[in-house]
Amino acid sequence: MPVSWATFGGDLHVEITGARPRQDLEDQVRQAIRDGRLRPGARLPSSRQLARDLQLARNTVAHAYDQLVAEGWLAARSGAGTWVAEHHASSPERPKRLDEPRPPRLDLRPGHPDVSAFPRSAWLAAARRALASASHTSLGYGDPRGHPELRTALAEYLGRVRGVLAAPDHIVICPGVTQGLQLVCEVLRERGASRLVMEGYGHPLHRGLVERSGLAVSTTDVDEQGAIVDDVPPGDALLLTAAHQFPLGVALSPVRRRAAVHLATTAGTILIEDDYDGEFRYDRTAVGALQALAPDHVIYAGTASKSLAPGLRLGWLVLPAPMVDDVVAAKQASGRLPSSIEQLTLAELITSGGYDRHIRRLRLAYRRRRDRLVATMEQMASPPRVTGIAAGLHALVELPPGVDEAETVARAARHGLAIDGLTTYTAPGHTRAPALVVGYSTPPESMFGTALATLRSVVQPRGAG
Amino acid sequence: MPVSWATFGGDLHVEITGARPRQDLEDQVRQAIRDGRLRPGARLPSSRQLARDLQLARNTVAHAYDQLVAEGWLAARSGAGTWVAEHHASSPERPKRLDEPRPPRLDLRPGHPDVSAFPRSAWLAAARRALASASHTSLGYGDPRGHPELRTALAEYLGRVRGVLAAPDHIVICPGVTQGLQLVCEVLRERGASRLVMEGYGHPLHRGLVERSGLAVSTTDVDEQGAIVDDVPPGDALLLTAAHQFPLGVALSPVRRRAAVHLATTAGTILIEDDYDGEFRYDRTAVGALQALAPDHVIYAGTASKSLAPGLRLGWLVLPAPMVDDVVAAKQASGRLPSSIEQLTLAELITSGGYDRHIRRLRLAYRRRRDRLVATMEQMASPPRVTGIAAGLHALVELPPGVDEAETVARAARHGLAIDGLTTYTAPGHTRAPALVVGYSTPPESMFGTALATLRSVVQPRGAG
Repeated sequence: MPVSWATFGGDLHVEITGARPRQDLEDQVRQAIRDGRLRPGARLPSSRQLARDLQLARNTVAHAYDQLVAEGWLAARSGAGTWVAEHHASSPERPKRLDEPRPPRLDLRPGHPDVSAFPRSAWLAAARRALASASHTSLGYGDPRGHPELRTALAEYLGRVRGVLAAPDHIVICPGVTQGLQLVCEVLRERGASRLVMEGYGHPLHRGLVERSGLAVSTTDVDEQGAIVDDVPPGDALLLTAAHQFPLGVALSPVRRRAAVHLATTAGTILIEDDYDGEFRYDRTAVGALQALAPDHVIYAGTASKSLAPGLRLGWLVLPAPMVDDVVAAKQASGRLPSSIEQLTLAELITSGGYDRHIRRLRLAYRRRRDRLVATMEQMASPPRVTGIAAGLHALVELPPGVDEAETVARAARHGLAIDGLTTYTAPGHTRAPALVVGYSTPPESMFGTALATLRSVVQPRGAG
Repeated sequence: MPVSWATFGGDLHVEITGARPRQDLEDQVRQAIRDGRLRPGARLPSSRQLARDLQLARNTVAHAYDQLVAEGWLAARSGAGTWVAEHHASSPERPKRLDEPRPPRLDLRPGHPDVSAFPRSAWLAAARRALASASHTSLGYGDPRGHPELRTALAEYLGRVRGVLAAPDHIVICPGVTQGLQLVCEVLRERGASRLVMEGYGHPLHRGLVERSGLAVSTTDVDEQGAIVDDVPPGDALLLTAAHQFPLGVALSPVRRRAAVHLATTAGTILIEDDYDGEFRYDRTAVGALQALAPDHVIYAGTASKSLAPGLRLGWLVLPAPMVDDVVAAKQASGRLPSSIEQLTLAELITSGGYDRHIRRLRLAYRRRRDRLVATMEQMASPPRVTGIAAGLHALVELPPGVDEAETVARAARHGLAIDGLTTYTAPGHTRAPALVVGYSTPPESMFGTALATLRSVVQPRGAG
């Protein structure tokens, strides 16, 4: 029963289709106001009149008017009728479509695990078991340190696999290492620190984040023994990727480890150990966490972003006892908590052994990929050096003489291959020979061969090969 | 084969139990250094000597030494042997046990849904369907606005249920309303705002968060028509809980809604609409979101914390077109993203209709609880007024004359009932008659009767029946 409202100028039709007449009426009046067919000030027919026109009960129309008045679309005064409220009906332009970030066809940028290897069924099974036994309160806002189940599972796991000395009460769960670093910077600043010494090669996102937290950043050089830690001024904190420097790929040498620990225990330097990929070492047993040597001075940071998937948003800090309360307070104030269900699921995955199995599978797969990368480079006419220890999810490919880094990155892009030059991860004031930071874990297995072949073709110096 | 190391003073025994001799040896040396039985500088036997003592292959001992040197526990120099490294073996005191936040026996504090009603099987089923169809890349770092699947589902849902005018591209997913508010404050400050006007009654956490973001907070009074919005200075932003004021429980009147929209469209005031419980109205159709009246000026914020569970950490912002890029940039810089799997699961729950079914069930349950609260209070000798519209997850219980708010809260605590006085949610400079903010959604169904009975007994004025 389509009905035309002659009272509104002929072009406004209201169609009441039956099932939800009041809803229909409201929706169509809102739409008409929105798109300007009903202008501010325009009078509406009386509810009695409209009900007759629309063949509806008068109450239906009256209630629709009440609703629209309550929402502010219409205004009404007893005895004066109902009219369209005076507000500048802003018809929003259709949103300009933001570019959906579309993944490149081939991707060898570092920092991503092979998400196609995410153990979907094991994860779902763990989620089912975790939800079956979870208390109701564990779905609430919960302990600001994170769920006790996960902190307990991590304490055992990190002790066993990384040698970390962690009591569950010293662990704080956070949605990724980035958030953990933010929390730590806030707390360091509150405790009077004014500067964080970072490695001269690292993720620019992390430097930016530290600076935004109000700490000054200074950088220290990295050589084949890892970061140079000798001249860290007293009072400054120091961030290290000790097990596997990102992006250069060296391990902090025993001498430097001792020097860092000496700084911590004699000068009170707070060390932040970013152990982002410590579970992946291929040539020998992984060097244990620095944290174990000075648990009262080292903040240990880890994540499930490399071992499972970045999309989980799960990371953890192991804190020196005196810092726990401050970090928890900062965390509570900012509400930075990861999902309960995922915390409980990861706890279940770890305690059931599924996490270990997954890591073992990944370790084997990534080790093979690293070997294939090395072999592919070695087959070239003037082979670029692949440097960094046999570990983690990335390696440094040093470009042959005469090959420009930026040009190589651009050439790769033209071939559909996303890759990062070392420059991307170099702090101001540091320089190194041109190189690519190859994240060999990024592509799904089926694309890895093509990605390597493309890499090979783009690092070939002009005229060679 | 327990073996004693006489070389270390008689009390250090190493037991190699067979399966993993190298691991055993390493663990026990680490432990001995940690607990001070091996002091810095102490020399270790040669690997040849120790291998003989322990009846192990020499390589096993040599590799264990290498590992411990690499980790910094031991130091070695060719020809000079191996010794315990010079670091102050800081034996961390056993962590002082933080008090596990233990939920009170009975809880009527506001802000929590009944987490025992969380639809565990529907959620798991949705997670299974979502993971079965998710692309691999959706488990990566992902679109900083949130997953397109969820933004699309929310655009449809919020339009249908709350009248929100939302294109998926204007929606940004964030881990809760708190994080959303943080982002918005950052962006407002960057765009030159210096102050946010907030309701004089509200969550102190939110005021604190706004202040920490660098915006000044001023507060406006709230009367029976909702927040007084007339004297917001130009240039200030304004935060409103329009559909259901928290904690007073009034709805913003049509006149005030028009005034707010007028401010926005004439003075360019940015409105933040915190629609934290807009889906729950019991006496009539819920008043639609203010956002629909001025989508270019209203930031709409919603959350799954009240409708599903706070532990999910899922919330959303619907943004005016010109703010989208800024908020996305701020979000990207801070890495505040909720879990991918949970985003995809919620999208699936919404599009499959499961979310609507869950809300309908909850709405019925909470409506009954509110009725029971009102009935319980009415049965009292001098009945306290229960005020606020029939909506949401909380009501205001005005205390009878002569009943002190703080005393009542303390008395409730002694009876095992956690409850908040209105003072908790009152900004400095505002005053009201003593009242309790009763969150009737908080207890599980089985505890609700007991909670109400306890509430009744503690709000009884002294000497009254």
